[in-house]
Amino acid sequence: MSLLTTKDGTRIYYEEHGDENRPSLVILNGIMMSTHSWATFLTDFSKHFRLILMDFRDQGRSERKQSQYHISVHVNDLVDLLDFLNISKGNIVGLSYGGQVAEMFAIKYPERVKSLVLANTPARITPYLAELGEAWKEAAMLYDGERFFKLAIPFIYSDLFYNRNLNWLKERQKTFKSTLNREWFEGFIRLISSNPDFNVLDELHKIECPTLLLGADRDIITPIEEIEMIHEKVKGSEFLVIKDAGHGAFLEKSGEFITAVIGFVLKNC
Amino acid sequence: MSLLTTKDGTRIYYEEHGDENRPSLVILNGIMMSTHSWATFLTDFSKHFRLILMDFRDQGRSERKQSQYHISVHVNDLVDLLDFLNISKGNIVGLSYGGQVAEMFAIKYPERVKSLVLANTPARITPYLAELGEAWKEAAMLYDGERFFKLAIPFIYSDLFYNRNLNWLKERQKTFKSTLNREWFEGFIRLISSNPDFNVLDELHKIECPTLLLGADRDIITPIEEIEMIHEKVKGSEFLVIKDAGHGAFLEKSGEFITAVIGFVLKNC
Amino acid sequence: MSLLTTKDGTRIYYEEHGDENRPSLVILNGIMMSTHSWATFLTDFSKHFRLILMDFRDQGRSERKQSQYHISVHVNDLVDLLDFLNISKGNIVGLSYGGQVAEMFAIKYPERVKSLVLANTPARITPYLAELGEAWKEAAMLYDGERFFKLAIPFIYSDLFYNRNLNWLKERQKTFKSTLNREWFEGFIRLISSNPDFNVLDELHKIECPTLLLGADRDIITPIEEIEMIHEKVKGSEFLVIKDAGHGAFLEKSGEFITAVIGFVLKNC
Amino acid sequence: MSLLTTKDGTRIYYEEHGDENRPSLVILNGIMMSTHSWATFLTDFSKHFRLILMDFRDQGRSERKQSQYHISVHVNDLVDLLDFLNISKGNIVGLSYGGQVAEMFAIKYPERVKSLVLANTPARITPYLAELGEAWKEAAMLYDGERFFKLAIPFIYSDLFYNRNLNWLKERQKTFKSTLNREWFEGFIRLISSNPDFNVLDELHKIECPTLLLGADRDIITPIEEIEMIHEKVKGSEFLVIKDAGHGAFLEKSGEFITAVIGFVLKNC
Repeated sequence: MSLLTTKDGTRIYYEEHGDENRPSLVILNGIMMSTHSWATFLTDFSKHFRLILMDFRDQGRSERKQSQYHISVHVNDLVDLLDFLNISKGNIVGLSYGGQVAEMFAIKYPERVKSLVLANTPARITPYLAELGEAWKEAAMLYDGERFFKLAIPFIYSDLFYNRNLNWLKERQKTFKSTLNREWFEGFIRLISSNPDFNVLDELHKIECPTLLLGADRDIITPIEEIEMIHEKVKGSEFLVIKDAGHGAFLEKSGEFITAVIGFVLKNC
Repeated sequence: MSLLTTKDGTRIYYEEHGDENRPSLVILNGIMMSTHSWATFLTDFSKHFRLILMDFRDQGRSERKQSQYHISVHVNDLVDLLDFLNISKGNIVGLSYGGQVAEMFAIKYPERVKSLVLANTPARITPYLAELGEAWKEAAMLYDGERFFKLAIPFIYSDLFYNRNLNWLKERQKTFKSTLNREWFEGFIRLISSNPDFNVLDELHKIECPTLLLGADRDIITPIEEIEMIHEKVKGSEFLVIKDAGHGAFLEKSGEFITAVIGFVLKNC
Repeated sequence: MSLLTTKDGTRIYYEEHGDENRPSLVILNGIMMSTHSWATFLTDFSKHFRLILMDFRDQGRSERKQSQYHISVHVNDLVDLLDFLNISKGNIVGLSYGGQVAEMFAIKYPERVKSLVLANTPARITPYLAELGEAWKEAAMLYDGERFFKLAIPFIYSDLFYNRNLNWLKERQKTFKSTLNREWFEGFIRLISSNPDFNVLDELHKIECPTLLLGADRDIITPIEEIEMIHEKVKGSEFLVIKDAGHGAFLEKSGEFITAVIGFVLKNC
Repeated sequence: MSLLTTKDGTRIYYEEHGDENRPSLVILNGIMMSTHSWATFLTDFSKHFRLILMDFRDQGRSERKQSQYHISVHVNDLVDLLDFLNISKGNIVGLSYGGQVAEMFAIKYPERVKSLVLANTPARITPYLAELGEAWKEAAMLYDGERFFKLAIPFIYSDLFYNRNLNWLKERQKTFKSTLNREWFEGFIRLISSNPDFNVLDELHKIECPTLLLGADRDIITPIEEIEMIHEKVKGSEFLVIKDAGHGAFLEKSGEFITAVIGFVLKNC
């Protein structure tokens, strides 16, 4: 358990797992996630990689900020962390919001990315995504973990996941209720407010490293068609679809997710 | 503009359009809809049909109730209306919640249904649907049309519809804000609370009239797989999918919806 | 049973069914079809329309030609037939190859098309379609109905149709064996050789009449994506997908096909 | 380049690549393939695995047989090869026909399979597949590589692959013409005739090793729904779909195929 103070003085939480002589695997969380979200993935990933997990500012155990920032600030934080860890060129995996950060990082610092995995990641905020952001902000402003769970989570997991894992989801709802405090919601609102203008479509051609795109057939937040646009612009990118899963595909179908990440990164090492 | 007082003393609003010698077309609304929702459909439908629109109790201009009821109560209301209008055997079109009522009606009174169109209609409340119901109830309990619109509507229309019709949706949001009052929300909550146990899968085989199922490829509320179950159980049923549309397919792709309804009903008259 | 001699002296077979005061419905066959293919559709269509069926030259009971022609020759034949029948403005339904003829007709004579239905129709011959044409030509040059059936038909009907209707298909195979003679194959080869350069993508915007596109989710000859291109170029066109069907959707799911055609044409009359 | 004489006296061609201390990867070819088909995959696979390629009897450089056999004979050949190579428990990858052999092997010798990858593999010969087999047999009996290519290959690769790789396909057609001799066709006919009754659906539950299913969204030979059946019966199996590819997905999208195989096998080692 470690904290890094970034150049702008923000304390960023990160974790390292696995042998440091192995290829790196740096995972950037989705907006509602944290390093905690990877607990059940540690064994598989640390067997093959030097695994680096981090919480964005306003996530998990990283520092809560007082004022609004732009999503690009996380790119700086990532640079600081990779510098500190002496990772000159990393294998970067980003999910959704974390994938947006990964896209910006790969566009700005192509020399620092050995391979890139973008899971359920958009290249732009469509009007629909902007409205979803508004819905989540509205739900967050109730400052009530249980109500937030009820209102926001049905967008994330597929109907199939709900139908098969209702008990688990009800437990999660209780966890949300007991752990999400006002500080968490304020951080979440800053995160969700950090990227209304996000659109890297015209810069994606700068990504020339091996790139894997992961989509899910029931993902309504980053539908296949939006990921297809990335596929067309990132030359040579691979594209795998996880079947019967929603936006939370990494969790709904964790086996397939781990298979794809391990295979793609090791192939390109 | 007419009101019928049903056998249990409830005032039900209904409208008739078109020549009464034409084949009937009785439309049952989705849960957030009302007879108003059909304004732009009147010309096409009344050219070919004796069109009957009605508001369920707690919808539109029908009476608001004080106590909770079961969804099956609407079946009785429909019987009373058809009796009053001297429609011994009607062509029934139901959307979503209205489709559930249509299913129950066709199962209980097969002799009164000439043909049946079920648009974006489930045959059972899955755990996911139940949770969606909870989310909508939660959103309704804010008693604020604008916030309700923000929280509930992104489940209904597809991302593509949002991306192409944002201005129209923003206008709708204003209408929700100005017109949805406490009375409306209380009615909506009763409607959404009326069918937690809904499941007619084992009775669908009793439907023997010509039946058309309409689905939409981006409908997450009644996904294609759920409609497929109806298709398997209703012998000889037809199944058309509206492409690039969500649960609100009748509005997102009104041309295709009208085409399918007119064609199916006239073919079977 | 009637023959019309066209302006260039070719005898074209056509049929009329239904009351001639009803709206017209002119059906243009797919390449392996003939007026015979519509036997089981006559009742439904003639109830609502003045139904006109025709065999293209080299099809069914129309004249076999000795020399190669371009697909556009059928447009002239269609003009001659409509003139003869006094149909100044018709409702045109084209399937596949017949849909290509319908596209050319609607582009060249927009004033003569009241509404247009394009079922499983391409707007261009892709390299894949050209190779399929070569495969069919190769199969035809065996001049053996049974072997032709075995080699060519699995491209047309979906696996699901084969799995559910194997006996019917085996009967069809026998019919092919007993009825397809050298003359038929030579005609088929001319038809399949008449459109290697077909591409109307840049002219589709000239189609301004009500247009319905019918696709099928398992159609590999005219996949959804190709039809999507037409949808984008023909302003206001409707698009319905027939589920669980291949290129032979009109037969695999005849109910859905009839529903869509009746509804669309009557709506626009 | 090595030949193994199996217990029944058949010479089976096989190849070994990569460090023999690495995890094994035993690849079983599709019906039209041979060890040659893997030329461009050697680098990626041999970096991570002790790669074993083999030609089934009647394939590639293995012995041509004179009489018909059942597909299960290859299971015996595989046992002999693994015994000879001292592979007590292997990672088995099967494609299509090779996947059927892999299924039978895993069902009969579960203790010898460490992990299993079934790519574009059916669990049963449906009526449609049987008819496809007849079509291919018919095409093979022309004993002409060019005509065989024209008639049989459009079932295998997707339209998108044809549209993007026409020149490559035309080169392949020339290779077929120059290399497929009567001996090859007779072998192919025996292979395609070896499994008319294949159906392991009721035995799939015996497969308990880690299993990855690979499908392709445009595969008409082993459509997603057929693979879904395997997914339901093999407990804990993973399922990845390769987008925009047909039955020849391993070649159409070789990057995605290699990613999935490397990731899945290494994860389970």
